[in-house]
Amino acid sequence: MKTIKNNGVKIAVIGGGSSYTPELMDGFIKRHKELPIREIVLVDIEEGKEKLKIVAEMSQRMWDSSPCQTEVRSTLHREEALLNADFVITQLRVGQLDARIKDERIPQSHGLLGQETNGAGGIFKALRTIPVILNLIVDMKKLCPNAWLINFTNPSGMITEAILRYGNWEKVIGLCNVPISAMVKESRILGHTPDELNYLFGGLNHFHWHRVYDKNGQEVTDKMIDNIYNKEFGIVKNIHDVPFFMEHLKAIGMIPCPYHRYYYRQEEMLQFATEDYETIGTRAEQVKQTETELFELYQDVNLTEKPEQLSKRGGAHYSDAACEAITSLYRDKKTYMVVSTKNKGALPDLPPDCAVEVSSYISASGPLPIAFGALSPAERGWLQLMKNMELCVCEAAISGDYGMLMQAFALNPLIPFGERAREVIDELLIAHKKYLPQFSATISALENRK
Amino acid sequence: MKTIKNNGVKIAVIGGGSSYTPELMDGFIKRHKELPIREIVLVDIEEGKEKLKIVAEMSQRMWDSSPCQTEVRSTLHREEALLNADFVITQLRVGQLDARIKDERIPQSHGLLGQETNGAGGIFKALRTIPVILNLIVDMKKLCPNAWLINFTNPSGMITEAILRYGNWEKVIGLCNVPISAMVKESRILGHTPDELNYLFGGLNHFHWHRVYDKNGQEVTDKMIDNIYNKEFGIVKNIHDVPFFMEHLKAIGMIPCPYHRYYYRQEEMLQFATEDYETIGTRAEQVKQTETELFELYQDVNLTEKPEQLSKRGGAHYSDAACEAITSLYRDKKTYMVVSTKNKGALPDLPPDCAVEVSSYISASGPLPIAFGALSPAERGWLQLMKNMELCVCEAAISGDYGMLMQAFALNPLIPFGERAREVIDELLIAHKKYLPQFSATISALENRK
Amino acid sequence: MKTIKNNGVKIAVIGGGSSYTPELMDGFIKRHKELPIREIVLVDIEEGKEKLKIVAEMSQRMWDSSPCQTEVRSTLHREEALLNADFVITQLRVGQLDARIKDERIPQSHGLLGQETNGAGGIFKALRTIPVILNLIVDMKKLCPNAWLINFTNPSGMITEAILRYGNWEKVIGLCNVPISAMVKESRILGHTPDELNYLFGGLNHFHWHRVYDKNGQEVTDKMIDNIYNKEFGIVKNIHDVPFFMEHLKAIGMIPCPYHRYYYRQEEMLQFATEDYETIGTRAEQVKQTETELFELYQDVNLTEKPEQLSKRGGAHYSDAACEAITSLYRDKKTYMVVSTKNKGALPDLPPDCAVEVSSYISASGPLPIAFGALSPAERGWLQLMKNMELCVCEAAISGDYGMLMQAFALNPLIPFGERAREVIDELLIAHKKYLPQFSATISALENRK
Amino acid sequence: MKTIKNNGVKIAVIGGGSSYTPELMDGFIKRHKELPIREIVLVDIEEGKEKLKIVAEMSQRMWDSSPCQTEVRSTLHREEALLNADFVITQLRVGQLDARIKDERIPQSHGLLGQETNGAGGIFKALRTIPVILNLIVDMKKLCPNAWLINFTNPSGMITEAILRYGNWEKVIGLCNVPISAMVKESRILGHTPDELNYLFGGLNHFHWHRVYDKNGQEVTDKMIDNIYNKEFGIVKNIHDVPFFMEHLKAIGMIPCPYHRYYYRQEEMLQFATEDYETIGTRAEQVKQTETELFELYQDVNLTEKPEQLSKRGGAHYSDAACEAITSLYRDKKTYMVVSTKNKGALPDLPPDCAVEVSSYISASGPLPIAFGALSPAERGWLQLMKNMELCVCEAAISGDYGMLMQAFALNPLIPFGERAREVIDELLIAHKKYLPQFSATISALENRK
Repeated sequence: MKTIKNNGVKIAVIGGGSSYTPELMDGFIKRHKELPIREIVLVDIEEGKEKLKIVAEMSQRMWDSSPCQTEVRSTLHREEALLNADFVITQLRVGQLDARIKDERIPQSHGLLGQETNGAGGIFKALRTIPVILNLIVDMKKLCPNAWLINFTNPSGMITEAILRYGNWEKVIGLCNVPISAMVKESRILGHTPDELNYLFGGLNHFHWHRVYDKNGQEVTDKMIDNIYNKEFGIVKNIHDVPFFMEHLKAIGMIPCPYHRYYYRQEEMLQFATEDYETIGTRAEQVKQTETELFELYQDVNLTEKPEQLSKRGGAHYSDAACEAITSLYRDKKTYMVVSTKNKGALPDLPPDCAVEVSSYISASGPLPIAFGALSPAERGWLQLMKNMELCVCEAAISGDYGMLMQAFALNPLIPFGERAREVIDELLIAHKKYLPQFSATISALENRK
Repeated sequence: MKTIKNNGVKIAVIGGGSSYTPELMDGFIKRHKELPIREIVLVDIEEGKEKLKIVAEMSQRMWDSSPCQTEVRSTLHREEALLNADFVITQLRVGQLDARIKDERIPQSHGLLGQETNGAGGIFKALRTIPVILNLIVDMKKLCPNAWLINFTNPSGMITEAILRYGNWEKVIGLCNVPISAMVKESRILGHTPDELNYLFGGLNHFHWHRVYDKNGQEVTDKMIDNIYNKEFGIVKNIHDVPFFMEHLKAIGMIPCPYHRYYYRQEEMLQFATEDYETIGTRAEQVKQTETELFELYQDVNLTEKPEQLSKRGGAHYSDAACEAITSLYRDKKTYMVVSTKNKGALPDLPPDCAVEVSSYISASGPLPIAFGALSPAERGWLQLMKNMELCVCEAAISGDYGMLMQAFALNPLIPFGERAREVIDELLIAHKKYLPQFSATISALENRK
Repeated sequence: MKTIKNNGVKIAVIGGGSSYTPELMDGFIKRHKELPIREIVLVDIEEGKEKLKIVAEMSQRMWDSSPCQTEVRSTLHREEALLNADFVITQLRVGQLDARIKDERIPQSHGLLGQETNGAGGIFKALRTIPVILNLIVDMKKLCPNAWLINFTNPSGMITEAILRYGNWEKVIGLCNVPISAMVKESRILGHTPDELNYLFGGLNHFHWHRVYDKNGQEVTDKMIDNIYNKEFGIVKNIHDVPFFMEHLKAIGMIPCPYHRYYYRQEEMLQFATEDYETIGTRAEQVKQTETELFELYQDVNLTEKPEQLSKRGGAHYSDAACEAITSLYRDKKTYMVVSTKNKGALPDLPPDCAVEVSSYISASGPLPIAFGALSPAERGWLQLMKNMELCVCEAAISGDYGMLMQAFALNPLIPFGERAREVIDELLIAHKKYLPQFSATISALENRK
Repeated sequence: MKTIKNNGVKIAVIGGGSSYTPELMDGFIKRHKELPIREIVLVDIEEGKEKLKIVAEMSQRMWDSSPCQTEVRSTLHREEALLNADFVITQLRVGQLDARIKDERIPQSHGLLGQETNGAGGIFKALRTIPVILNLIVDMKKLCPNAWLINFTNPSGMITEAILRYGNWEKVIGLCNVPISAMVKESRILGHTPDELNYLFGGLNHFHWHRVYDKNGQEVTDKMIDNIYNKEFGIVKNIHDVPFFMEHLKAIGMIPCPYHRYYYRQEEMLQFATEDYETIGTRAEQVKQTETELFELYQDVNLTEKPEQLSKRGGAHYSDAACEAITSLYRDKKTYMVVSTKNKGALPDLPPDCAVEVSSYISASGPLPIAFGALSPAERGWLQLMKNMELCVCEAAISGDYGMLMQAFALNPLIPFGERAREVIDELLIAHKKYLPQFSATISALENRK
């Protein structure tokens, strides 16, 4: 066990004013015997000051009604939070939900998919976030060089890629609740608890496949596929339930992640997104509503545990993922988790030094990725396509090169490239001007052209 | 020089009744001093009997008015043509132009691109052709085991892939007139003859990029890109002249092939194809008209050279490619050509044993591919995607597996996958029933479902 | 947990008459609560009949004095043992210790290293063993197609390679006691129990390196290297204690396995082997003596547990490895073990489909290899050299091709290739004639030449 | 054709005082119609002043008796020679022949092979030369950034590797006369001129294999191997004529280069070298004698062409290689040559960015390497071993790290690693102290230890 100064670890939460934070507190409180926390510092930016205060107070109440004496502090000064932190959690959202709304609405206004982590929206979220995260890394190198960065800021895979490749920072784990949700729901489909089946995941964040095995060592992936078509399938809340084509899944021989629907049922998913856009609003708009409700609840000084409504927010299992990862790092628990980490060969169809999302055991020295083996042509094609698309996005996020951004858009399978896509690029650049300093010259030129 | 029995080589032309054949004759006659031909046997199937007769007579007239005593024979028995052949040229079209019309019209009727070698149409052309070509290889192994197969049946890259991978036949060269056309036209753009510039091509058939160098060894690719935007660019006849985005090309740093328009200007190309489909008819329908005219001309017993109108057919430089490849093989000329051949590492981003289209020197023992080097992320992503898509098509063509065909469709960047794409698959399967015996069980099931 | 017919698993031990068998029994008895064994069938060949009887009786006595009712049977009919077996353990020795003596003495008589798993001796052990093991696989496919093969017949890495590559049998785990010994001894060096440190192994059987981490996640490999030079280092019993050069280890940055001495201190190791050869005899000769003593002990009807002297035999931790692997497969325990298994990318410097020896978690569906990552040039060079040498040995073992055997010898770093090496090849071929039917034509020619 | 200022190119020869220089002049004079040379500047260091003067005067006499007005100048100031040079030829020898004598004698005095480019000697030649060449590159970047560097300083492969990897200079061609000698002699073996056969080379400098094809495209490698054993084989002068084992070559299926004898007949080659060492002296000592004779001849003011005796020097075809490479670069001749250049995938078993020696066509923009394809396990093993050994040498040459030097020695197949090898390292370090500033700290420590 780690020797911790002053009896316990220090955790910094970047974007601490998020409505998710109570989930996180809940997860930590559950694990308090394994993971002694000295203090949690929630950081946010000026614009989020109000929410930060509400969340910090709510969080402190949660701890106060627990058996622990953990202190929750809030600050607008990131350096204060980072100094000597043992773990840094990033759940920030550059430009907040309003930026996400633009990521969703601008593509949709042109008839293209507007989604948080896929297509045009996902690319622009990465463009805004990568510079901020790399800047955080610069600070961490100074203030907490031994800390682990636990990222669940989306698009988590590209963020992890940028941290490894451009930040030269190895102590990062990218998290997502998709794999854990799949394991919980699919186990139920076969009448098992998650512990009674083994799952092997390989791919990228929001773009992985998995195989399932029973406790006799038999692969039951095919059986699971059959059952999926008889029962309710384990999709995440914010993805419409369009089934995959059965023959397609049989040919793949693995179970795709729910986000694969955007690719394997591209047209139907676009159609649903368009309907929402035209009627109830995009996902971010719905989330914003949920958030407002949550923050109202959080202000109730009698509320000392996470409210039921939080589960509507779509991040179920998030706290489990983050808190368990931290506990496993701290205790060298070798917990089985599916995380974004350095490939190291786990997916031999990709270079060993890129970020992948694979089944891993989390040791004190970080994730131990399980070698997944070579893929068949179709999945290899998808995997190599998506990773290279991600690399173009990262390169564009660093360089601010308009041509490289076009490369990313053209390569993205959800974007039929041409004049319309170009207009979407240009509109998004202008809309997010404030958060894209690396593109300032291009944006000025675009604005002048008008 | 090759020792040839009876003073000269024997050439078998599979699909000899094609309207292209006189181009081929013209190319051979031009090279008669380098390449002594004893006999040319044109083969075709029963349905093409009439055309075969016309073309054979026209061809014989061309030779008769040359200084050579080459005999042109025609036959419906492939074995007769293959026996002891030195070179076998494949320019067959399974299902003839009518099948191509279906490849074009059925996808377009659903709003998807209908094109001969790209998208749904290209996939189905491969499904029909691969079994026929592999059957030809079986015959060649018996009847002319030392012959070279010169393929320009489309989709030339996938055909070459199937011959190498499933036919286990190494003596194949896949040809295309796209690279030679680009070199001719681009040289003109910089005010040069093709000999005054060097071109390095790398990629797949109808999906390659190239770099250009002047005689001082300076790379002038960037200069060429600039000039392309000032002048008429070297596109092939059957592709609408939608310009690439300048910034996109600058980021690529190489010049794409004209067919890249389908990917880099996906929407506009679809729009143009749709307009044609709704007005003047698809390309195959236009070609059919041109062919009728050509065959009328060919029947003129006074015509002894290829008519001017043939150039409208769109295969300019085809004869040059085929005749020069054969002459170079025969004479060990080391002619510089861009051909589909075994990778051997020329494109290190793909496995060494797959088919690629790269700059090569044609020696007596076959193409010597020039190592092109590793690509940047974006092009690497495209290349790996397309090659893996091709591998899925080949696998589906061999196995007749419906799921694998879905994999190919889903991975194909020109097909937004979903219910609509599935309907296109099903309609094409039924429409081409006669030529897709490997899918007979699936097709029966589809027909019964209706 | 696996459902076992008749309340417990059936274990077949090929080469059951080995003096090691009581170790194995001891290991199983220790684990009887986790692993219920119905019956153990010891198989051996006619020549080993006597020993088999002694060992079987000794083994039954061990079980009889345990709380279990496990039956130990012995047979000369392998089929009987394999039928419906759940686990098959191979600890056979083709040609028994006399063959090993030849593997050791013939090279030494020419001044080359004679060793069981390295150099000329290791190559010939593989040549004799691979055909026998592949024959066993043929039987297993018929008689126990769901069984796992637990191999600790040496050279374990090449045997595993042959089983995967030529046997097309995936359910195999190659075991060795070297990693476990290293972990036990090195932990002591740093004043820890093995559980208090993490070890990551990567390489091939008898040719791997490892890194060490403490429970705070800090890599302590370098510290371990420093300490090795101050204290007794964890070498296996049958390797002379020649220290690695400190600067060499520092440059490697990982800890080599004890067998690396043959390569990193090639000359000194040869010198020690030569001294032994000229004085006390080779290792096999010493083992033979130990074995005679052991078999005398085993005949004592009062002996009901493994005798102290067995530890001299050099296979400490062997039973632990085998019994734990089986228990972990049976119980899906995810025990951390270092095993020979399919690479799947764990070592990205080798093809994904070859056998490697890497840290793994043993699940019910087999080893989950941990991705080790790319190596630095020197270790990459060694690894690629050794694996390719192994592939040549496997190919020679299958084909009986003399030239391929020369390739293996020439590539082997412990054999200075030339006339002397060729004589060693020829003498070993003739000496092992009985066990090398694949080389019979070559051997006849050699004999006639004399 | 290149536009050259002042009617012709400028050539700088680093190490211009070499006895080889008249060969070079001879080669240029022969090509004067294709390659107009304005001036040739021979550079050497203070110690070589006298020889430089002799060679420069001899060279000028050669040109004066030619139809050209080329001026030969000599200087001790490298900058003067480099300024605006079009081609830079490096034929320098750091430490001159005396250093080579040490490279040969010190290992031999310990019973190890002492050879210029292989084993310990080759490693130390690289250690001395790489820093000097990288320093030259620094100057070239300033003084002649468009020039091509034509290197035939040994070990040519490692020098090219260092230039590409650490010099970040792409315009380099590494030359060697071994391939051309093989082609000349082997063609004769089959009763052909070199033009009547095609050769495909793949591998590293002094470590390549080749295949042979006739003008009918048939591979005749096997036939060539058979004939080699009937007739005199094309070995280079300074390698003893120990034949390869026939069965070994048959298994390889390619023809190794003469230097492969050091590996494939390791013991016999060592024995011959030892005999020479003990009797007539090492190769450098013999060369020194030849050189003395040559310089005496060169002083004859009546001598206006290269003397017969120069061929004894062992560099036959050297001038051909260098002059033809330069002419081909200048005229974009696409001459077929075997050169050390960037891999780019030509050997897919090595990374695309390392230096290899392969068949290439030399264009104005540099070598176009022919993709050689994947190798079989044995050759793949050798190739990967040797390239990684070279990478260790380069790394040691840059860093001066003693442990990395041990890595190179240990991995080198001609060095049985251990105490003796370590002594050889230490003696060579001390002996070459003057030329190994990067190792100064280590050398001081070694000297103090004594």
